[in-house]
Amino acid sequence: TPESSERTAVPGVSTGLAVTGMGGDVLYIEASLLPGDKGGLSVTGQLGDVMKESAQIALSYVRAHAEELGISPEQLDHPIHLHVPAGAVPKDGPSAGVTMTTALVSLLLGRNVRAEVGMTGEVSLTGRVLPIGGVKQKLLAAQRAGLTEVYLPQRNEPDLDDVPADVLEALTVHIVADVREILSTALEPVSAGLVAAA
Amino acid sequence: TPESSERTAVPGVSTGLAVTGMGGDVLYIEASLLPGDKGGLSVTGQLGDVMKESAQIALSYVRAHAEELGISPEQLDHPIHLHVPAGAVPKDGPSAGVTMTTALVSLLLGRNVRAEVGMTGEVSLTGRVLPIGGVKQKLLAAQRAGLTEVYLPQRNEPDLDDVPADVLEALTVHIVADVREILSTALEPVSAGLVAAA
Amino acid sequence: TPESSERTAVPGVSTGLAVTGMGGDVLYIEASLLPGDKGGLSVTGQLGDVMKESAQIALSYVRAHAEELGISPEQLDHPIHLHVPAGAVPKDGPSAGVTMTTALVSLLLGRNVRAEVGMTGEVSLTGRVLPIGGVKQKLLAAQRAGLTEVYLPQRNEPDLDDVPADVLEALTVHIVADVREILSTALEPVSAGLVAAA
Amino acid sequence: TPESSERTAVPGVSTGLAVTGMGGDVLYIEASLLPGDKGGLSVTGQLGDVMKESAQIALSYVRAHAEELGISPEQLDHPIHLHVPAGAVPKDGPSAGVTMTTALVSLLLGRNVRAEVGMTGEVSLTGRVLPIGGVKQKLLAAQRAGLTEVYLPQRNEPDLDDVPADVLEALTVHIVADVREILSTALEPVSAGLVAAA
Amino acid sequence: TPESSERTAVPGVSTGLAVTGMGGDVLYIEASLLPGDKGGLSVTGQLGDVMKESAQIALSYVRAHAEELGISPEQLDHPIHLHVPAGAVPKDGPSAGVTMTTALVSLLLGRNVRAEVGMTGEVSLTGRVLPIGGVKQKLLAAQRAGLTEVYLPQRNEPDLDDVPADVLEALTVHIVADVREILSTALEPVSAGLVAAA
Amino acid sequence: TPESSERTAVPGVSTGLAVTGMGGDVLYIEASLLPGDKGGLSVTGQLGDVMKESAQIALSYVRAHAEELGISPEQLDHPIHLHVPAGAVPKDGPSAGVTMTTALVSLLLGRNVRAEVGMTGEVSLTGRVLPIGGVKQKLLAAQRAGLTEVYLPQRNEPDLDDVPADVLEALTVHIVADVREILSTALEPVSAGLVAAA
Ligand SMILES: [Ca+2]
Ligand SMILES: [Ca+2]
Ligand SMILES: [Ca+2]
Ligand SMILES: [Ca+2]
Ligand SMILES: [Ca+2]
Ligand SMILES: [Ca+2]
Ligand SMILES: [Ca+2]
Ligand SMILES: [Ca+2]
Ligand SMILES: [Ca+2]
Ligand SMILES: [Ca+2]
Ligand SMILES: [Ca+2]
Ligand SMILES: [Ca+2]
Repeated sequence: TPESSERTAVPGVSTGLAVTGMGGDVLYIEASLLPGDKGGLSVTGQLGDVMKESAQIALSYVRAHAEELGISPEQLDHPIHLHVPAGAVPKDGPSAGVTMTTALVSLLLGRNVRAEVGMTGEVSLTGRVLPIGGVKQKLLAAQRAGLTEVYLPQRNEPDLDDVPADVLEALTVHIVADVREILSTALEPVSAGLVAAA
Repeated sequence: TPESSERTAVPGVSTGLAVTGMGGDVLYIEASLLPGDKGGLSVTGQLGDVMKESAQIALSYVRAHAEELGISPEQLDHPIHLHVPAGAVPKDGPSAGVTMTTALVSLLLGRNVRAEVGMTGEVSLTGRVLPIGGVKQKLLAAQRAGLTEVYLPQRNEPDLDDVPADVLEALTVHIVADVREILSTALEPVSAGLVAAA
Repeated sequence: TPESSERTAVPGVSTGLAVTGMGGDVLYIEASLLPGDKGGLSVTGQLGDVMKESAQIALSYVRAHAEELGISPEQLDHPIHLHVPAGAVPKDGPSAGVTMTTALVSLLLGRNVRAEVGMTGEVSLTGRVLPIGGVKQKLLAAQRAGLTEVYLPQRNEPDLDDVPADVLEALTVHIVADVREILSTALEPVSAGLVAAA
Repeated sequence: TPESSERTAVPGVSTGLAVTGMGGDVLYIEASLLPGDKGGLSVTGQLGDVMKESAQIALSYVRAHAEELGISPEQLDHPIHLHVPAGAVPKDGPSAGVTMTTALVSLLLGRNVRAEVGMTGEVSLTGRVLPIGGVKQKLLAAQRAGLTEVYLPQRNEPDLDDVPADVLEALTVHIVADVREILSTALEPVSAGLVAAA
Repeated sequence: TPESSERTAVPGVSTGLAVTGMGGDVLYIEASLLPGDKGGLSVTGQLGDVMKESAQIALSYVRAHAEELGISPEQLDHPIHLHVPAGAVPKDGPSAGVTMTTALVSLLLGRNVRAEVGMTGEVSLTGRVLPIGGVKQKLLAAQRAGLTEVYLPQRNEPDLDDVPADVLEALTVHIVADVREILSTALEPVSAGLVAAA
Repeated sequence: TPESSERTAVPGVSTGLAVTGMGGDVLYIEASLLPGDKGGLSVTGQLGDVMKESAQIALSYVRAHAEELGISPEQLDHPIHLHVPAGAVPKDGPSAGVTMTTALVSLLLGRNVRAEVGMTGEVSLTGRVLPIGGVKQKLLAAQRAGLTEVYLPQRNEPDLDDVPADVLEALTVHIVADVREILSTALEPVSAGLVAAA
């Protein structure tokens, strides 16, 4: 899809699925590593209390599991800025947890998130993927945006009964219980160029 | 029980008993040790003032009694994140004190909390376990969740009169006056593998 | 008394007298010294503005008079946590000033507060004991709780006229104008064991 | 135009287009580099939450892309003050994002923004230019202020249909999707004097 | 007077004159120097915004004029706590400025404020004494409290017309335009003992 | 004039013109340099949000142009306190910008502001003087206070039409577009004594 391809063309950007007052929508989580020797997280995008906590949980998960994820510890010494456009639209809720976690890992590994992928799910501090609302609306939005793969929490599997058949046809739905299942499959491989340079 | 077994399968997670608008429920306290050389506590999960103070009391108790608990002082130099899913549900009250204390000790000793155990009780700064409300609802929830052992404050012993006989039959109830009584019996022993590696 | 004996069985806990919506009551101030090399005070227990300031005044008094009180300056380099159970009950007012000061000195000298003692009184930054309200209710509560000695501000002496004779009979009332008069008589002597170990 | 010529006669000042209660208007973003060895951003001008976040996003974009923009890293070690006159008028919204980014780059490269240029557009953390409102009013204001070139977000191109022909005649409208397109064309070249001195 | 004699018997305490809901009253400003190597001011006593600023102004005046006042710069490296009993009574207004300045200088020079002295007046950052309200009530309170000398702002001299003759008879009123006039006359001389020890 | 002569008799004090609920008035901005090695600005005088930002803008202007103004950089390493008496009167608005800037430069150069001078005007971060309100009332107040020279923003020149002829007769009005025009003419020359000592 043109839109998500452009948006996720750099490491640190992941595509989420959201419910708004007017149905479902696609949103992009952007993470950026800043120069500076003091770690820390700043968040923008008019995020509410719950969503700010989601960002904190996502970063703690990544920091505590950095070694296992192949992230070099030095990366975590720099400040990180996480932004969710559009900047004037208030946003809240825990369901961008997996998307934030994925954006951070994409950033810190320097590997793009695959453009055809969208995701939704709360993440706990231990990486469990907890259920969210609006599955039907979110899958309709994913299809509308031209995405072809979607990650959903295991405990939301029953909600697929309410999703129209043609939408399910158009999408590959990955059912996940742990955020590792997303992190291991939703990122592009390291590009040949980067490997050669290493 | 499958749910609590999965949730407590890593050190730092403890099972609490809570009262919600719709009866009793089981909640999980997750604690995680982060890289970084500045101690400190961050809490998430939409916790109210009283519950945030409970987390602070639990950490102070653990810090002041680290030696006695067998926790190495270096562990306490790192930041700790304590989270209580689900992230969007506001929670408050002092009765998760024992559960928070147990999650922290589990984390810092690297020993899982036993999966069949649930607990409730306010903790004071000296480790006394103070009484809480909703004993009947909490024990019903513990049984429903498949737990088989529950820790209750001594001053709540009279409340057991109101708990149905079949629930009491299904549960072993430990009556405690000091949080040490929980900490010494609710954690798994160090695994053989870890002992061998030490 | 069993309750206050157990509560004050460690250094850092002092018994105060309070007025609640339902008459007088006994409350316990718990102070704990934490590992860490940056002094400072954290307070918990849902304390209001005035009571938080009381804790700050108590600590300033102790810090400014440490030498005179026999407290080693190194003790004051560590963070102190002061808690007033029960954690969910809002509390306010200046009358726990002497109790907080006594708890801190008990903690820093490693000497228990005597179990039979209760106290009430505002403290100024220079150690003066200023008058408080609710003398009658507080003395009734002290007797009910089995305390046998009570410290009262000098300017509250006239209020003793309103206290029932049998209550006054049961209690030894110490009238004090300076907090030093409490600190020099309300603590247990250093235990033999500690002296031998020194 | 006299006004914008004077205002943008030093590096760090960029001309934005805004919508007020009384139609469109031109506003100036002023950025200044302060002595001091601790980076950081202070903002003044009675900016609302969204506009403060815009400033933060603009600075993060510039910090993360400093090398690519030709900005020496030492420049970013100093504090930056960003002000939007008039000081007593409350302002908000994300549409000054491109203007703030341009003011910062102008400041850090020491190259004036061209006096005949105005701009509007939200910026994302990756530099994408997102659509804004009030295109017609803003272009009317640009013409009234004597500007001759305007930068607009690509996704606002359809809004040009509503702009009077004579206004479009008077203005060169640059349609942009990435803030780099503005940064590479809206600044004055380095002055001969500065080059000689280098 | 017995009360003010006891209260001002240590360096750092100065007697002010205030207006309350029930006429004039005497209040005591207590300042204490704490161990610690980071300067700074903490204030307690339920002070309002204006009165907190007065404390800040008083300290800045003393810091900027330390050399002229004979205060050794090392004294200013320690934290200062300023308290105004009674702790539960809200207080506000700028008229304790001279009293706060005098308490700080008394503390830092180790010289008591003379017990027979009361004072009232706003202080500016340059030490000017600005007019205050309630002169009549304050002088009545001073006399009632047994004080015999009072310092008043020059611009309040006309208000003396309203003060009863017997009150003026009982008091020596010093009219001052600069706080130096108070600082040079309201403190006790250094005691012989201290001089000998120096 | 006696009042302004006394108030501006030390470096760091500048005379501003304000509009109050009861017409125009003269106010004094006092700036003081404090001992200490950490720069920074504290403001007192019950200033509103806009006026606090004015102080921040004034200091940033002075810091960024220190060299050009002849201010030694070491001066800026110390904390600065800026106060606007009377301490209990709430004040707000941007029109004291030039007065604050002048007070800071007077302080840092050690040169008094000329006693016969009053001023009003918003300052932008680049030093531009922006228009303000209440010109007529402010000039009436200046004359009433015995001032003989007044600085006004260029864009307020038309407002002089409304000022009574006798007031204009009594005052020399300087019309300025840049704050440098004030800074270069409103300060006393360095005194002979200081020059000799240098
Ligand atoms: Ca909230
Ligand atoms: Ca791809
Ligand atoms: Ca609360
Ligand atoms: Ca209050
Ligand atoms: Ca005993
Ligand atoms: Ca907002
Ligand atoms: Ca040009
Ligand atoms: Ca106020
Ligand atoms: Ca005397
Ligand atoms: Ca405001
Ligand atoms: Ca002169
Ligand atoms: Ca002129």
